[in-house]
Amino acid sequence: MGCGDNCRMNTPVQTSPYAPLQNDTFIRACLRQATDYTPIWMMRQAGRFLPEYRASRAKAGSFMGLATNTDYATEVTLQPVDRFPIDAAILFSDILTVPDAMGLGLSFALGEGPKFAHPVRDEAAVAKLAVPDMDKLRYVFDAVTSIRKALNGRVPLIGFSGSPWTLGCYMVEGAGSDDYRLVKTMMYSRPDLMHKILQINADSVAQYLNAQIEAGAQAVMIFDSWGGVLADGAFQEFSLAYTARVLAQVKKEHNGARIPRIVFTKGGGLWLEEMGQLDCDVLGLDWTVNLGKARAVVGQHKALQGNLDPYALFANPTQIEAEVTKVLTSFGTPHTGTGTGPTHIFNLGHGINQHTPPDSVAVLVQAVHEQSRKMRTPLV
Amino acid sequence: MGCGDNCRMNTPVQTSPYAPLQNDTFIRACLRQATDYTPIWMMRQAGRFLPEYRASRAKAGSFMGLATNTDYATEVTLQPVDRFPIDAAILFSDILTVPDAMGLGLSFALGEGPKFAHPVRDEAAVAKLAVPDMDKLRYVFDAVTSIRKALNGRVPLIGFSGSPWTLGCYMVEGAGSDDYRLVKTMMYSRPDLMHKILQINADSVAQYLNAQIEAGAQAVMIFDSWGGVLADGAFQEFSLAYTARVLAQVKKEHNGARIPRIVFTKGGGLWLEEMGQLDCDVLGLDWTVNLGKARAVVGQHKALQGNLDPYALFANPTQIEAEVTKVLTSFGTPHTGTGTGPTHIFNLGHGINQHTPPDSVAVLVQAVHEQSRKMRTPLV
Repeated sequence: MGCGDNCRMNTPVQTSPYAPLQNDTFIRACLRQATDYTPIWMMRQAGRFLPEYRASRAKAGSFMGLATNTDYATEVTLQPVDRFPIDAAILFSDILTVPDAMGLGLSFALGEGPKFAHPVRDEAAVAKLAVPDMDKLRYVFDAVTSIRKALNGRVPLIGFSGSPWTLGCYMVEGAGSDDYRLVKTMMYSRPDLMHKILQINADSVAQYLNAQIEAGAQAVMIFDSWGGVLADGAFQEFSLAYTARVLAQVKKEHNGARIPRIVFTKGGGLWLEEMGQLDCDVLGLDWTVNLGKARAVVGQHKALQGNLDPYALFANPTQIEAEVTKVLTSFGTPHTGTGTGPTHIFNLGHGINQHTPPDSVAVLVQAVHEQSRKMRTPLV
Repeated sequence: MGCGDNCRMNTPVQTSPYAPLQNDTFIRACLRQATDYTPIWMMRQAGRFLPEYRASRAKAGSFMGLATNTDYATEVTLQPVDRFPIDAAILFSDILTVPDAMGLGLSFALGEGPKFAHPVRDEAAVAKLAVPDMDKLRYVFDAVTSIRKALNGRVPLIGFSGSPWTLGCYMVEGAGSDDYRLVKTMMYSRPDLMHKILQINADSVAQYLNAQIEAGAQAVMIFDSWGGVLADGAFQEFSLAYTARVLAQVKKEHNGARIPRIVFTKGGGLWLEEMGQLDCDVLGLDWTVNLGKARAVVGQHKALQGNLDPYALFANPTQIEAEVTKVLTSFGTPHTGTGTGPTHIFNLGHGINQHTPPDSVAVLVQAVHEQSRKMRTPLV
């Protein structure tokens, strides 16, 4: 975790079959290198708030119809990049592809969330679990390659996976949950089974992310969406340790280019000090975290990504600009020198809401770019 | 917020019409006075996990049928006290009684949560809001007096209210929510309306808690159940400031006895330092908080209450005892001297789950009492 890796410049490499990156602001900020402005992308940016996404989804017939079809996945991943001058694209996929490949039988009932036909709730079910054949996830890797080509170097492409704990929650609960009773019951009463699931998940996620990197992903992000439901102590043992196990196996570079690794634990603000010890480049933060305090705690080791409340986008343009100012000034001015130093990647604190007016996003992106350029300009 | 008030002993007073308190462990711990063991009570302890509660509710016909009937409210409040040697009772009521008294029309649809017929979503609705006539809440105060008499001094009775922000969430959303889009939209786009609602809520809650104290409540607790959904900055402005406004108006003593004031913000662990400045006696903590760190941050000013994950009660007795040990040792040994010092009130980090086996609660209470007595015994 020294500066050694991070200090290396992300130079274009001859061996890459892809077009050179025209906008490397996001990658540079991930690696704690100075940038002219603060890059921005948004979690769930390829999503229902965009009318063109809704049209694609109607054509595809379903969410998984989009995710499993290379052309559709490419189409919707590029939609926000075409509409807004954002600084990164993120693979359109679902976080539950890995347990689905394990044979748990993922489906999406209309108007409800994801559901597994075969949840993992007892010793026999755990005994049957194994790291899935990555060939079953070929549709994801094909989508990555297709998107990377279609982007043609405009902005970098982020690959992603759910964290071992977050996947485990869904695998045990069999669906989303508002109390996590089943998975927590297993965790407290049969920690041996829980650890077994998490080991398999961690090794699966590592293979999955490596395959995305080989397919063309230029950064990867681990979404620990449910780490924040754990008690202090349990988080470290059942979530953080397995995120670390993933990171120990995931590539740090590919074809001569550094591959930034991002970890986002929703509700994980209390554990920032411990997350600062992870072998990753960037920590994602939700809106409850004060960026200035986070910078003081982990800013010497990690870039920080976040953290506007997505609901601020329901205000008017002037108010959105004021909220952008609050987030940018909370982090403070990123470093502008050579080498590495504190950097910030603007994002929402969680996925963008489906009812968000697209015009608000245009205001947001412009405000982040303009204000953050000004912050870097010394007053004369 | 100096030691002056807290240092005063909670001596029984001749003017009280009630039986003297036989077990004042909870009150003493709230006031940071030494106790022989760590007192325990549980949020939502009068609830569905108890078969006798379910029988009472069946008789009453509905949740509000229980809460609005003095005899039923008394009966269910005493049920957990009769079954377990817990150290406090808490009024059986709902957090939405105050907005209901404002005329919002509270109802509970079968199998769903609470719902308001007249949510507060625009300027006209806000203009109509006012502090309600406390006579409309007479049923609550009558229940408090009845329960206090029925307890006959066995353990103290805690009164409570939702926080101004938490009430505001329900008032704007019109029901529970999983994203708080409507209330956050108002907060970001019409902060003037939000502030107006919160001012009225704060003054209403203060009157409501004072009336509970006059009716016999021996401690009061403010449940800021939804403070944790706010962004850093917004929490301080829209939740904490109004909790402070309540506290500025709520009695600190009654009939010569100190009335401890407890504030619990679910998901508020990141703001402990600021919450430590509140003019209250106790901070409640959910399970994500490390009690040792919390003690270091606010333990010089406040007693701490919490914070076992309620789902730990789904484990076996030996495992429950081990989880109790973790929580107690995380806080560390409370002070045992004269005057005031660090104290801990054991609780769950949130309400007990309806599926919890009652026998697990018996194990929990015994483990807390026994282990915490031993912690205070110097090794010979």
